[in-house]
Amino acid sequence: MIFVTNDDSYLSKGFRNIVELASEFGDVIAIAPDRVQSGMSQAITINAPLFLRTVEESEGVKVYAFSGTPVDCAKVAFDHVLAGRKVDLVLSGINHGSNAAVNVMYSGTMGAAIEGSFYGVPSIGLSVDDHDADADFEGAVKYGREIISSVLAAADSLPRPLCLNVNVPRCGVEEIKGVRLCRQTRGFWREEFYEREDPHGRKYFWLTGAFKNAEPEATDSDEWALVNRYVAVVPVQTDMTDYRQLTHLRGVIK
Amino acid sequence: MIFVTNDDSYLSKGFRNIVELASEFGDVIAIAPDRVQSGMSQAITINAPLFLRTVEESEGVKVYAFSGTPVDCAKVAFDHVLAGRKVDLVLSGINHGSNAAVNVMYSGTMGAAIEGSFYGVPSIGLSVDDHDADADFEGAVKYGREIISSVLAAADSLPRPLCLNVNVPRCGVEEIKGVRLCRQTRGFWREEFYEREDPHGRKYFWLTGAFKNAEPEATDSDEWALVNRYVAVVPVQTDMTDYRQLTHLRGVIK
Repeated sequence: MIFVTNDDSYLSKGFRNIVELASEFGDVIAIAPDRVQSGMSQAITINAPLFLRTVEESEGVKVYAFSGTPVDCAKVAFDHVLAGRKVDLVLSGINHGSNAAVNVMYSGTMGAAIEGSFYGVPSIGLSVDDHDADADFEGAVKYGREIISSVLAAADSLPRPLCLNVNVPRCGVEEIKGVRLCRQTRGFWREEFYEREDPHGRKYFWLTGAFKNAEPEATDSDEWALVNRYVAVVPVQTDMTDYRQLTHLRGVIK
Repeated sequence: MIFVTNDDSYLSKGFRNIVELASEFGDVIAIAPDRVQSGMSQAITINAPLFLRTVEESEGVKVYAFSGTPVDCAKVAFDHVLAGRKVDLVLSGINHGSNAAVNVMYSGTMGAAIEGSFYGVPSIGLSVDDHDADADFEGAVKYGREIISSVLAAADSLPRPLCLNVNVPRCGVEEIKGVRLCRQTRGFWREEFYEREDPHGRKYFWLTGAFKNAEPEATDSDEWALVNRYVAVVPVQTDMTDYRQLTHLRGVIK
């Protein structure tokens, strides 16, 4: 059984595409946010009740809409809806927009995929480098299918947690050169706050910015792969300990 | 100049305590969420305007309330309010509740501290293992002061990014045994969804759960330190690449 979620809500085009793709591999239970939850990272809802409703039930596919974050969707799936059932794979996406580089940390799509991996299930976050609501998902579906097949075939031999951040370039499927295993690109976003006045004369800010790639020439990085029209696959782990800094800090923190 | 933020809002007791502590080390500019933003992780606000207002201005201390997430607060600070000014330190907290172990990933307090470190500034997230609105912050202030002093004194010799996740046990200050440099404990939350009906007969869920420590005996882990009444200091990095898995995946992903 395949568990599917995302952060663009159950109404997005990417979600329809991934449910269809997932159903090629087994029964699908999907729990997706009931509204757009982009940029929600690993956020959880602590201080509010959450509502779950069935929005689709057909042969082998059941879709719920949940009023929480993407991670809430994964949690209610594993600790309630699917409790005790064997889940073979978690799929999150197909995201409208790249989650390469440090985007992995802001992404609700990857937040849910990471959370899924905490339950010992192979998890794949699948994204296309195109924010358009009508983005072209042909490449993501084609290469997503190949990667899912490979992961399911090798699942027994791979350690856990197992979580993949898969990003597909924005181009025609025939222009994609192949798949590359990569590491996360170093670099950070720098924002330019769009500043305007609302109808009541109050100043507001709107977040907008650009990713500053600290290593554009690094051919083993996921940004390089995307720019060069490869599908980038980065395995993701969640031990955030900075072991090098730990060494530097001996003698500083006593 | 010290930049201060948190995730419990500018109205929380922990925030008042950290602003006071920060002001011992220099001028303070604080931008904190205008409402509770616990569990918001590294979330950012993409699809809505954000409002910033001054809520306090006194000798050496200026406090703004911002309608965004903790990370939004850090971004608007560095890329707008403080743009061009030299920031010596980012302080986030004092959080009501532990951010040890995998909590670092869900925490808005740590989300903001991590974001601060992306700007090359030493960042410290400070938390107490007590969710109470009236939690005792005496230990956090005492040991926070020591750690801040040590970091500022050594700042020039430490590489960047530099981000510390500091967690203080829930006990009287005199019962704290000291400070320990640690690594992030392995383990995950397992949830039990509290299930009830609202006044209209609709079923709702409320997230509640418990942390399952995968290595309670590991004396170098932050959970061990907290349980044994030490202040736990974990340096945090954000390369999420799973390098071991990268090796296993060669031959699987082609």
